[in-house]
Amino acid sequence: MQPLITTAEATQIIAENCLRVGSEMVILENAYGRVLATEISADRDAPPFDRVMMDGICINTYNHKLGSWRYQIIGTQAAGAEKMTLPKGEYAIEVMTGAPLPADANCVIPVEQIDIIDGYALPHDGIAAEDNQHIHPKGSDSKAGDTLLTPGTTLTANELAIAASVGATEIEVTRLPKIHLITTGDEIIDPSNSPTDYQIRRSHPSAICALITSQQLGNITTEHVNDDPKLIEQKLTSALTDPENDILILTGGISMGKFDWVAPLLEKLLSKPAFHGVAQRPGKPFAFWASNSENSPTIFALPGNPVSVMATMHLYVLPTLRKMLGKNNQPKNLPLAEDFSWDSPLTGILPYRSNNGKITIHPPRNSGDYLSLQGTNGFAEIPPHSDLKAGENLPLY
Amino acid sequence: MQPLITTAEATQIIAENCLRVGSEMVILENAYGRVLATEISADRDAPPFDRVMMDGICINTYNHKLGSWRYQIIGTQAAGAEKMTLPKGEYAIEVMTGAPLPADANCVIPVEQIDIIDGYALPHDGIAAEDNQHIHPKGSDSKAGDTLLTPGTTLTANELAIAASVGATEIEVTRLPKIHLITTGDEIIDPSNSPTDYQIRRSHPSAICALITSQQLGNITTEHVNDDPKLIEQKLTSALTDPENDILILTGGISMGKFDWVAPLLEKLLSKPAFHGVAQRPGKPFAFWASNSENSPTIFALPGNPVSVMATMHLYVLPTLRKMLGKNNQPKNLPLAEDFSWDSPLTGILPYRSNNGKITIHPPRNSGDYLSLQGTNGFAEIPPHSDLKAGENLPLY
Repeated sequence: MQPLITTAEATQIIAENCLRVGSEMVILENAYGRVLATEISADRDAPPFDRVMMDGICINTYNHKLGSWRYQIIGTQAAGAEKMTLPKGEYAIEVMTGAPLPADANCVIPVEQIDIIDGYALPHDGIAAEDNQHIHPKGSDSKAGDTLLTPGTTLTANELAIAASVGATEIEVTRLPKIHLITTGDEIIDPSNSPTDYQIRRSHPSAICALITSQQLGNITTEHVNDDPKLIEQKLTSALTDPENDILILTGGISMGKFDWVAPLLEKLLSKPAFHGVAQRPGKPFAFWASNSENSPTIFALPGNPVSVMATMHLYVLPTLRKMLGKNNQPKNLPLAEDFSWDSPLTGILPYRSNNGKITIHPPRNSGDYLSLQGTNGFAEIPPHSDLKAGENLPLY
Repeated sequence: MQPLITTAEATQIIAENCLRVGSEMVILENAYGRVLATEISADRDAPPFDRVMMDGICINTYNHKLGSWRYQIIGTQAAGAEKMTLPKGEYAIEVMTGAPLPADANCVIPVEQIDIIDGYALPHDGIAAEDNQHIHPKGSDSKAGDTLLTPGTTLTANELAIAASVGATEIEVTRLPKIHLITTGDEIIDPSNSPTDYQIRRSHPSAICALITSQQLGNITTEHVNDDPKLIEQKLTSALTDPENDILILTGGISMGKFDWVAPLLEKLLSKPAFHGVAQRPGKPFAFWASNSENSPTIFALPGNPVSVMATMHLYVLPTLRKMLGKNNQPKNLPLAEDFSWDSPLTGILPYRSNNGKITIHPPRNSGDYLSLQGTNGFAEIPPHSDLKAGENLPLY
């Protein structure tokens, strides 16, 4: 292992070696969670016409004689129909929410504020009838040509509705990176099999695939290989030369154990890693190889321990995927609910729980399997040897 | 419209009429985001054996003579292999992280703290060698039979890894409710078509489907119908008598306009709604019909305005779906970043933005299309006529 670097240095090296992916077209119905690659702009004003905002009648406030307040209803302006014209004089047109305001009208009086008797609308005493009342003016939300959504925007419910409203039924989004996960370990068996006393069921792929696909951060394939250097070399060679792979994730095999073949074999097949070993706990043995050509993957070699896997996924792999996809990518910050002391020369990457905008740190009870993370919301970064007070903000992943 | 009820009364009436859905089996790979219908318990102790936590050697601290510190290495205990036995005397066995601790060993010394010379391990001066050192004891995380995940748990990365670790490759989850959405409005056209001056493209289905499917809250189908009472009655009849439909959502057609056919037709086909009209802004015309038999859907009739749709979806529909699915379902609370005054006799359901654990209220700039929600995180509930100070907590949806 090389000399340990800091988490900030590791983040920096990874960021400098992060390749952007290209883009592809998806239909609106399949665009949820994807990241916009180009801007979406308005094809026309919004609203596209002076839009009636209440069911009622429209009048022209300049037409009525003071004190009279009685309008002959000469028709109905429905939503979706051609715009009518309000004649000069004490006339009204019935209007529906969403309808275009008839030409020469300037005020809408809600149906609750009038009586309709024998074809005449009689507004109640004392109600308001102002210029532009209950009218949503053409172009007041946006003008034709305005940028509505910018590249890098993640498309959620609201953005998809905006895209639909301007007819963007095919959308250019960033391509999902292709990720290949290789788990290692002789003691690891398929979850559907019955373990002997000294085996355990494979759980990393379930967690890693869920993290990536639930956030639409990539398309992932997985395989497992036992601690046999020949087999590992075969699998690595095949993963490294598959031009489809943007990212290769490995779990285990990078510590100093006798059967830790992953790091030595990657060094043999490629070169020394960009770094191997970060001054953090957990996740210290983490190693990273930058992509060395357009067709070779970026490699994240994670330690094999579950909490280390989750910590390094949250701190390094998920932010890298977000960056490749062009997403805005700042860790959020929340204040500590209570004091927390961390007496280690290594940066702590520790699970936290958040509640009403504050966090509490929950160090794993033991060497840390997935059970110890139950109920936590992510990982907080704690500086080495720190004595943190309630109210201090911590970066969260 | 009936007399207005409060948001609390509306929530209460809906909750009392919320039917639970049944359960179904899904495979582990498809279980992300689903809600557990039964508990998942441990099939054996975790860890299943005294587990070595570091690469190094194991010894028995009671075997060594004070001051000697020299152990003959008699073999290697690999992960996944049968447990070896450490002989009495000054012997050591090489061990790998994740391996079972050999019988009669009680301490692991990390490889960084020893030298290995001619088949002997020589621990460095002054290092620790305690009983149980770097050993993760059998059953210390959980015992066979312990409940690891309880019904109502939403399955995310960590829970799926826990399920995999106990061999739960098929999981009983609550069934996704079948939801049918009918949008109405003569002015509304398909997003792929070109609107005339007085038409607008349909955007509610994009938003509503994204809200529901992204959170795994249901399976949704959609259709649109123009403001023609015969057509609407046909579509309603067919949706009401389809035994597959658990929930019917309608948008528009429930105000007091001349072409608002939805509410009168539902009254004709069913009965008076449980309520129609809530003292809130936006979303006042919202109406609700409880399911009146096992085969008839619960009906949410939402106003047609985009911000009203999103407000009533967040306040009523999404929490109902979560409850049907058996999810824990408390609105979260966050404090205001700045003072906010709300001068209305109606409860405000207003968009907010959250930043570092605090929220700011962003009332829509205008009658409220989807653009006005851009960058907001959900809806806060603001009491009528309230003068809120920075730091006060508000319930968020």
